[in-house]
Amino acid sequence: MELYKRMKFNNKNIQIGKNVKIGKNVKIGDNTIIYDNVIIEDNTIICNDCVIGEPLADYYTNEKYQNPILKIGSNSLIRSHNIIYAGCELGDFLQTGHYVTIREFTKCGHHCSFGTHSDIQGHCTIGNYCRFHSYVNIGQKSIIGSFVFIYPFVVLTNDPTPPSDDLIGSFIDDYTQIAAGSVILPGTKIGKFCLVGANSTVGGSFIDDTFIYGSPAKAVGKLSKMPFFNSKNKKHYPWPYNFERGMPWQGIGYDNWIKSNKNI
Amino acid sequence: MELYKRMKFNNKNIQIGKNVKIGKNVKIGDNTIIYDNVIIEDNTIICNDCVIGEPLADYYTNEKYQNPILKIGSNSLIRSHNIIYAGCELGDFLQTGHYVTIREFTKCGHHCSFGTHSDIQGHCTIGNYCRFHSYVNIGQKSIIGSFVFIYPFVVLTNDPTPPSDDLIGSFIDDYTQIAAGSVILPGTKIGKFCLVGANSTVGGSFIDDTFIYGSPAKAVGKLSKMPFFNSKNKKHYPWPYNFERGMPWQGIGYDNWIKSNKNI
Amino acid sequence: MELYKRMKFNNKNIQIGKNVKIGKNVKIGDNTIIYDNVIIEDNTIICNDCVIGEPLADYYTNEKYQNPILKIGSNSLIRSHNIIYAGCELGDFLQTGHYVTIREFTKCGHHCSFGTHSDIQGHCTIGNYCRFHSYVNIGQKSIIGSFVFIYPFVVLTNDPTPPSDDLIGSFIDDYTQIAAGSVILPGTKIGKFCLVGANSTVGGSFIDDTFIYGSPAKAVGKLSKMPFFNSKNKKHYPWPYNFERGMPWQGIGYDNWIKSNKNI
Repeated sequence: MELYKRMKFNNKNIQIGKNVKIGKNVKIGDNTIIYDNVIIEDNTIICNDCVIGEPLADYYTNEKYQNPILKIGSNSLIRSHNIIYAGCELGDFLQTGHYVTIREFTKCGHHCSFGTHSDIQGHCTIGNYCRFHSYVNIGQKSIIGSFVFIYPFVVLTNDPTPPSDDLIGSFIDDYTQIAAGSVILPGTKIGKFCLVGANSTVGGSFIDDTFIYGSPAKAVGKLSKMPFFNSKNKKHYPWPYNFERGMPWQGIGYDNWIKSNKNI
Repeated sequence: MELYKRMKFNNKNIQIGKNVKIGKNVKIGDNTIIYDNVIIEDNTIICNDCVIGEPLADYYTNEKYQNPILKIGSNSLIRSHNIIYAGCELGDFLQTGHYVTIREFTKCGHHCSFGTHSDIQGHCTIGNYCRFHSYVNIGQKSIIGSFVFIYPFVVLTNDPTPPSDDLIGSFIDDYTQIAAGSVILPGTKIGKFCLVGANSTVGGSFIDDTFIYGSPAKAVGKLSKMPFFNSKNKKHYPWPYNFERGMPWQGIGYDNWIKSNKNI
Repeated sequence: MELYKRMKFNNKNIQIGKNVKIGKNVKIGDNTIIYDNVIIEDNTIICNDCVIGEPLADYYTNEKYQNPILKIGSNSLIRSHNIIYAGCELGDFLQTGHYVTIREFTKCGHHCSFGTHSDIQGHCTIGNYCRFHSYVNIGQKSIIGSFVFIYPFVVLTNDPTPPSDDLIGSFIDDYTQIAAGSVILPGTKIGKFCLVGANSTVGGSFIDDTFIYGSPAKAVGKLSKMPFFNSKNKKHYPWPYNFERGMPWQGIGYDNWIKSNKNI
């Protein structure tokens, strides 16, 4: 698939630092600044008013500061007013909304999307095909699997005794969904194929296929047994049997995709 | 009333697309970009660093993409760093804070205001005289009446079985207030003159004049009977008898305004 | 300590109003706009795409509008895409994240930091050494002591009967911590050395050293007696005995600092 064949940006007021590698067919929006040591791979678009390769705090105080390498994968679409720090490694087919910040040493896989006003605090690891909606705040040391969708105003916290330097990230396993307004407490472990209900306050550990809800949140039951029916009057979970837009099993079905892909 | 007589913007680094219609006495801030097919009506101010008529996703892939018409009404004030998508129809006397996104096919009436960091997700309908404070997130398919005030960190969600494409918007009727931090679940229906208490998780249907509170939220009672007294030691609800700043009944009283206006 | 010796900003597309006083060794990022009557003290850095001294609403309607003085203290670091209104008085060593708004007549002491996407609504008072993380929303009329840390998606509200003009701010005393997702109701008073647990809804008054939690929040007990142990297996509260990074007692211990500083 060849994305983004056409752009009408004007190449006005763009500034590009040293040792910046820009792939084929990359487009850069007006007023965007790209700092040193940035790699942007083929077919990627950076829209207007972005800061790419934002230097770390040390930049302002250390004469010998060198910007760590930032790599943005191919076929990505970075919308306007994003700030992406140096030191990140972001996979192919990344999509972002507006006013997104991605702090230093964030590592994410391919086909992720980060919604408008999201703030990825850095020093965290995110798998493939994750979708974060608007206003998602991922604390440092978080580890997130693949196919994890997180909805607005969710925060993954990391300090069990604030303030401290004893940061403990959470671990959210593959296919899990975290509904809007939930707070994930430091060190929380959530298994695969879980759903966290809206506005929950979640601590502790939860096994696969759990519906988690409340403040403080409890394991309400096996998610696949809960009466969550979709518009086809079918039990919706596990959701990959019922949702495929943009997923790698689109058109072939989840079971067939699983058979042909031991590793994603 | 003639607003905005004086501006000291410098007309620097402004870019304007094709087929843009700009009314009389419109001012445009520095570094602002206006894409194709935008209509800005008389006396409106667009501040610095805005993107107006932001193209839809199709723009990046479709050679024949045409930007849908964006109309911004007269006497509006769009503050800096806003992103307003193509395809919206926004009424007169709109006011926005900073870093606001208004996605495609948002339709709002006149005298609305959207606070700083708000994210209107598009494909939604908003009446007149609505005020959204900072960090308000309106999901697609939401329908909101007139005189609805929404406070910080409120989200109107729309996916009952995430992730799915079965989006169901909420309906919030006239004069209803939604206090800070509340999550409105998909398909919620809230009548006129209701108040949703802070940090609630609201699903289901609620009749007019209900005080709604809790997680999950319940109908606590008739709002007009609840002991919510204002600084004049008067029952505050229904609030139009006790608040008039910027409302069309300012100076004449709500009853007189109602008598003279069958339709707002 | 001499901060920020080196910068590589390009002085491109910067605009500066009348009567702007810029101290020694100040650096200003590209595309930044500084309005009239701004004072920036020595060694301060303003990054790219900021609006400094943003005029009040009256600017757009009043021919004789004069921008109130904005003062930004020395040795501060204002990151990119900030909007700081006229009329604020901000102490030395301020640090901000990105997309921060600080509205008119905010007064803050020295060594404060305001995280990415924070929105300080103005007409409020903040002490010294306060740290607000991402997405902190401080309502007008709030009064916040020193060493107060506030975590993501916390809002300090101010309207007990929305909508009204009877705004009542909250008072948060020194050393208190407010965890993520909490809503502080109008007129709340929280003493010194308290901790508000995550996702709480807090109203009323709380004495010093209280652990406050729930929706509605209750005083769970004396914070210093609660079993909150840190990684050294030590009771963490009162926290100044266990956290010193960036605090004035760093290297000397809290007790020694208290002895030598009757006033902070």
